[in-house]
Amino acid sequence: MLIHNSTDTICALATATGGALGIIRISGEKSLEILADIFSRELSTARPNSILYGHIVNDSEIIDEVMVSVFRAPHSYTGEDSAEITCHGSRYILNKVLELLVQHGCRMAGPGEFTQRAYLNGKLDLSQAEAVADLIASNNRATHQMAMSQLRGGISTELSRLREQLLKLTSILELELDFSDHEDLEFVERSELLELAQKIDNHITRLVKTFETGQALKEGIPVAIVGKTNVGKSTLLNRLVHEERAIVSDIHGTTRDTVEDVITMNGVNFRFIDTAGIRQTIDTVEQIGIERTYAAISKARIVIWLIDETPTPAELADIKQRCSEKSLIPVWNKSDLSTLYNKSASTSVCCESVVATPLLHISAKTGQGIDTLEQALFDAAHLEALSENDVIITSARQYQALTNAHDNIIRVISSLQQNLSGDLISLDLNLVLDDLAEITGQGRIVPTEVLENIFINFCVGK
Amino acid sequence: MLIHNSTDTICALATATGGALGIIRISGEKSLEILADIFSRELSTARPNSILYGHIVNDSEIIDEVMVSVFRAPHSYTGEDSAEITCHGSRYILNKVLELLVQHGCRMAGPGEFTQRAYLNGKLDLSQAEAVADLIASNNRATHQMAMSQLRGGISTELSRLREQLLKLTSILELELDFSDHEDLEFVERSELLELAQKIDNHITRLVKTFETGQALKEGIPVAIVGKTNVGKSTLLNRLVHEERAIVSDIHGTTRDTVEDVITMNGVNFRFIDTAGIRQTIDTVEQIGIERTYAAISKARIVIWLIDETPTPAELADIKQRCSEKSLIPVWNKSDLSTLYNKSASTSVCCESVVATPLLHISAKTGQGIDTLEQALFDAAHLEALSENDVIITSARQYQALTNAHDNIIRVISSLQQNLSGDLISLDLNLVLDDLAEITGQGRIVPTEVLENIFINFCVGK
Repeated sequence: MLIHNSTDTICALATATGGALGIIRISGEKSLEILADIFSRELSTARPNSILYGHIVNDSEIIDEVMVSVFRAPHSYTGEDSAEITCHGSRYILNKVLELLVQHGCRMAGPGEFTQRAYLNGKLDLSQAEAVADLIASNNRATHQMAMSQLRGGISTELSRLREQLLKLTSILELELDFSDHEDLEFVERSELLELAQKIDNHITRLVKTFETGQALKEGIPVAIVGKTNVGKSTLLNRLVHEERAIVSDIHGTTRDTVEDVITMNGVNFRFIDTAGIRQTIDTVEQIGIERTYAAISKARIVIWLIDETPTPAELADIKQRCSEKSLIPVWNKSDLSTLYNKSASTSVCCESVVATPLLHISAKTGQGIDTLEQALFDAAHLEALSENDVIITSARQYQALTNAHDNIIRVISSLQQNLSGDLISLDLNLVLDDLAEITGQGRIVPTEVLENIFINFCVGK
Repeated sequence: MLIHNSTDTICALATATGGALGIIRISGEKSLEILADIFSRELSTARPNSILYGHIVNDSEIIDEVMVSVFRAPHSYTGEDSAEITCHGSRYILNKVLELLVQHGCRMAGPGEFTQRAYLNGKLDLSQAEAVADLIASNNRATHQMAMSQLRGGISTELSRLREQLLKLTSILELELDFSDHEDLEFVERSELLELAQKIDNHITRLVKTFETGQALKEGIPVAIVGKTNVGKSTLLNRLVHEERAIVSDIHGTTRDTVEDVITMNGVNFRFIDTAGIRQTIDTVEQIGIERTYAAISKARIVIWLIDETPTPAELADIKQRCSEKSLIPVWNKSDLSTLYNKSASTSVCCESVVATPLLHISAKTGQGIDTLEQALFDAAHLEALSENDVIITSARQYQALTNAHDNIIRVISSLQQNLSGDLISLDLNLVLDDLAEITGQGRIVPTEVLENIFINFCVGK
């Protein structure tokens, strides 16, 4: 059971161990009372949002010299009385302080329990709570912006607009019902209602569609580099990766968990799908090679087609067909070799007659043209509109609720088209309202399992 | 060069990445001015030791919702104006905030630079600064207590007592010099001076000797388990390690870097030296086996001699000789096998005639007697007197200074014994005072290289 008693006082380590400092968080009615048992300074008179320097003591033994930050309900993250102890980052000290807090009446917090309390105390809605986990996990500008927009209530704002339109639709239908004895009376033309319902559905559908982008941004936009052996796929990948590593290592004192073949460009992660196993050209390979290429292409959102000789019309037709639903970027590599250059020029014409994107000329070896390729990748990801204020659905839970809302509004539309009675339609409209309310969890009792699923993904201490 | 410009404003990540929260520290004259450029709240009027909730912004883009703790000179860790930003623990966010601070005029701090400034501003002496690094690195009660005692000025207090005595000696000698024309006048008998000097040397020698204990506690007290093959050395080690692991994993949410064969008992680390390579009994082995055992014994402070049959008088004599400077604990293993028990009883008598410690009876297999063995190990470490208030020298730098002080006071003693003139003795006494002053660095200019060596071992952000 994740849904704990929410009236007791909880504590947890909120930072990773191994740094110079570490923060231990406490929240709950008895926070200051319990902390006072092991702290050298008076806490009952401490001003809210103030910092006290003092010692954590166990009987007469001094465990650490610390800073205690005091917060008072409702002006805290959780909405409860709470405190943060900034200790030295020694694991011994951090464990000891937690141990003492538990001895004096705290309970070790479960994952996300502070945020759960913030939700239960009305400080955040559910979509904002989910954004907290995303924000902590964000490792590039795009995922950070998505999470920040959601944390700042982007989705809630979007949903309240939808809700307004739905309530308008409902009230008109109810008015219609009230006057249903006047058979011929229709306050608003059904066609107008239909238009409104369709507008709502368009809005919902637009949100549903952002989920794919959200997922791609979270996991990295999948890109396949395909081409014949020795056309320079690995050299290109190394060059792209190298550029990124240089940027990251600019910042002193940070380390980076190397995720193979995930590259951040313009703040967006691109995940390169391995196609290294392919050793033959596309048109002449044995079946197994073809299947591998196609599998890579099918998982990709963008395909870089790397060539260094003019493709045959069959090759062109094949790649075009295979990538019909992808962004295909044809790239002529080895443009540093002047002997090939003329061929590449004629290939441009040939390529452009078949695929929409113009042929790029690069040299993976010298780095020439890489900037242009990066820009092309970014353009191909279709994130032009991505800004801080964009609402992008990133949670599967929200996606499910929106998909349900879509199904229900489609039923409303169909009922309106069939001129079914208003009370029937009202029922479906209420379902849509319910689906949307599920996303923020506001004004309704959220089932325990739903809360469990949300907070299980959190780290302890948040 | 580690010794940076100490008037600019520095920033660093003070926590490890990977937690729910992260702290970025800023210190220096322009701390609040620079932070104000990227923070959504007014800082110039912020009360000292207060916490402000707000946003870190880059132009109009919100990077994070944070808490800013404001400290004003001289009431801060460094003694300068400073601030701590508590961000969400995302690496992207933490890097971005550091990047912004640097863009607006901060410099990334070097290792230990905050503590270095605290020293330069008179908030800590050098021995306390060293204690900060030890405190953060402490992973058990003993190393934690040593560091905490040192941080609280334990060494400084001890040294000021020594200094007092030295000054007394000096002033008497100087008085003697002032009246040196009255040839026969001696205010204090030389024998009294000698007594005082010897008392000082005893004090210094006692401190010097604590270094070995300090090192042993930091690295783990070295213990060798020696004995014949199949006597149960590995089983014993596993049992000791197992007990320890269980204790550590009691604490929720912590992980432990497994350091092979280092075991914490009663809050003290014991480091077990591998003697697994020894395949022969001590008295009959070929030379190579003997050498290995002896090498292990020579590195150990404590030797557990594991037996399961009555040793020959030659074996007893040999182990006694080899362990003459160690704590030797003879242990009869397999006491669960009743057929052997009578033999072990007779062995007790035989052992006790040769080594001081009584023979212990354990069963590494069942765990019987392990408590007693652990207590015996703890006793053999001779840490009885170790308490929070004990001064233990842990730094090689301090050890070197004390050793120099010892050499110089020995020269003072010898000069007093030879009845040499007071001015000569005064010179040596001043050297002793200098040596001691080096430890805390107070009242003197500490050479750059010394500071470098101290702070190079710090983590960034402290």
